[in-house]
Amino acid sequence: MSDDARDIRLARAYLLAVAEPPSPALAALVDDCGPVEAARRVRCGEVPDAVARETAARSGIEVTGADLASAAKSGARLIIPEDEEWPGWPLLSLRVADGRGVAGMTSPIALWGRGAARLDAVFERAVTVVGSRAASGYGEHIAGEWAYALAQGGVTVLSGAAYGIDGVAHRGALAAGGVSAAGGVSAAVLGCGLDAGYPAGHQTLLRRIAERGIVLSEYPNATAPARHRFLVRNRLLAALSAGTVVVEADRRSGARNTASTATALGKAVMAVPGPLTSRTSSGCHEMIRAGTATLVISADDVLEHIGRLGADLASPAERPQRGTDGLSGDALRVHEALQPRAGRPVEWIATESGVPAAKARAVLCALELDGLSQRCESGWRRGAGRGRRDTG
Amino acid sequence: MSDDARDIRLARAYLLAVAEPPSPALAALVDDCGPVEAARRVRCGEVPDAVARETAARSGIEVTGADLASAAKSGARLIIPEDEEWPGWPLLSLRVADGRGVAGMTSPIALWGRGAARLDAVFERAVTVVGSRAASGYGEHIAGEWAYALAQGGVTVLSGAAYGIDGVAHRGALAAGGVSAAGGVSAAVLGCGLDAGYPAGHQTLLRRIAERGIVLSEYPNATAPARHRFLVRNRLLAALSAGTVVVEADRRSGARNTASTATALGKAVMAVPGPLTSRTSSGCHEMIRAGTATLVISADDVLEHIGRLGADLASPAERPQRGTDGLSGDALRVHEALQPRAGRPVEWIATESGVPAAKARAVLCALELDGLSQRCESGWRRGAGRGRRDTG
Repeated sequence: MSDDARDIRLARAYLLAVAEPPSPALAALVDDCGPVEAARRVRCGEVPDAVARETAARSGIEVTGADLASAAKSGARLIIPEDEEWPGWPLLSLRVADGRGVAGMTSPIALWGRGAARLDAVFERAVTVVGSRAASGYGEHIAGEWAYALAQGGVTVLSGAAYGIDGVAHRGALAAGGVSAAGGVSAAVLGCGLDAGYPAGHQTLLRRIAERGIVLSEYPNATAPARHRFLVRNRLLAALSAGTVVVEADRRSGARNTASTATALGKAVMAVPGPLTSRTSSGCHEMIRAGTATLVISADDVLEHIGRLGADLASPAERPQRGTDGLSGDALRVHEALQPRAGRPVEWIATESGVPAAKARAVLCALELDGLSQRCESGWRRGAGRGRRDTG
Repeated sequence: MSDDARDIRLARAYLLAVAEPPSPALAALVDDCGPVEAARRVRCGEVPDAVARETAARSGIEVTGADLASAAKSGARLIIPEDEEWPGWPLLSLRVADGRGVAGMTSPIALWGRGAARLDAVFERAVTVVGSRAASGYGEHIAGEWAYALAQGGVTVLSGAAYGIDGVAHRGALAAGGVSAAGGVSAAVLGCGLDAGYPAGHQTLLRRIAERGIVLSEYPNATAPARHRFLVRNRLLAALSAGTVVVEADRRSGARNTASTATALGKAVMAVPGPLTSRTSSGCHEMIRAGTATLVISADDVLEHIGRLGADLASPAERPQRGTDGLSGDALRVHEALQPRAGRPVEWIATESGVPAAKARAVLCALELDGLSQRCESGWRRGAGRGRRDTG
């Protein structure tokens, strides 16, 4: 690892620790001047008031190379946007929502992870499965069966590692590992540090998830679980997959919070019907009635629905009038850096646009869907927009 | 009863027997020249080919005053559009759909009924509750509870008297009779003659329905139950209420046929969710997914939904551009017969428009909803349309 790369990683570890996520002002500062400079300014107190407020309570903390080394010894690593494996594409939904002014949608500054899998691979095809802690036998049956079927089909089952539906969904996905080479991958995002040992009864489960998949957290080690952290965590559950399935939910529940976040992020939201006599299905029925979730009847149905959503997003009716009308911030800068004919490597585009390479790559992939960028032998060039593509 | 009235009743009894319902050509002939003349022409064979085809198989039959008298002795009566109690308002939905060219929506030429209640009163506020014959305990629980609650609130529970959901719905409604003076009214429409004794195990139930409500059939005595008759009957189940609730249904089922007919008639269609593990809820889930039924969670929800639908239909967005744009056939003729200022009795309007009095009354009530007719001391006069009414 180069000195620069080590500095960036250390800076992001510090930035993640110095403010309670989500820290929108701090994230904006990092976007503006990069992580190393942002960390320096926070340490010196040379920051706008909003950043000062976010970092005031923890201004004394420090993160050193020894801290990272000790984390590595416990099997944890810091994954940062500059890493190849950073899941820039699914997290783009947070940046888009944040850009539209949806509160609390700040993209994470980095993520702590424990597990064998690369993040970009894990989240290439993922479905979030969530539900009540106090699940019914019916809900557990559905969650387990569907997670198994999804994982067997090579889809990562993402959940929150809580008791009830979450736990059953993880276990169902892991069970598929024995029958399919591609299957059995699950991922969890926690609302506490990776070392918090929470929930106490799921330590073995979390170890098993890490064996083939990944356990993630925005919170440094020694961060205790807290209600507000689960809500903040929910945006990552919603963002990192193509869609969220609520298997069972009371009228008020964390699962519904994840679902409404997924809606805000433009992701597919699905709900499982159940008996009206079961309190744990009432939230699902309410969402279906309100039109905020689609009733799904099987794992195949979930896959089909996610497929349909993808197709819908690419449909002409959903596209802005002019190809570049909907672009803003990084996407606009990357698009303007592209040459009409000559392909350029991502690094060149990153330099030209001032958008970090990993982020630029995610943006280029997003632009490609609308025909606004094209891959070629020498890298990427400008596309004419969907209207002139045969595949439109 | 005057000779004329007796002739009309006998003519309609004959017309109901001489062709298998629905008999659109025969119904059109009755609309054109009235029942007595239509019956005469059918007997003489002086009819268009389409009517001849509908009546060919039974051209030899006859219905006499003695037949009506014997029916009366068994407690059955023939209810005809000329009767005050004819439910012209709910059945208007059939005439509208028929006018729009929806196949099989012919309004009945008359109805055989056994029961204490007047049809117009029974169907003033009614909900159709249908579902699988092979119902689950869950479905029976919901059907019984909801029917009880609806009937207790003074809503007639209409169903098909079949085993399973139908039977439980009738029983639930009847049970409300003991607790509420207005409650406990149920109505059934059969796919066979009132004397067919079908289903065999529901004879006591049918007697109890008739005690406070009504049992109806388009089929003369001695008509055997048959699959195609149940489908034809379903249009009456759909038409006579404000909305249809499907409690449980397989993917292929009569209940779904009733529901799709209700959709074609512009009525509210609702479905009860259930466990995905139950085959009898699969049809309900499919309808909810397809958007052809609304998920409902309680009897109150059913009532609210029917109320909402009524409100929606009267909303400005749903109304045609000019008040009379949507009128056709009888409605247009009745509207044109109305005087701008002077009120006229229904009989006068009937003569002027050539629309039978009972039908004219139903049309006038429909027109009133859009402000196109107004009640006054001397009868009815023309309204200016919703735009100039304070209650709009």
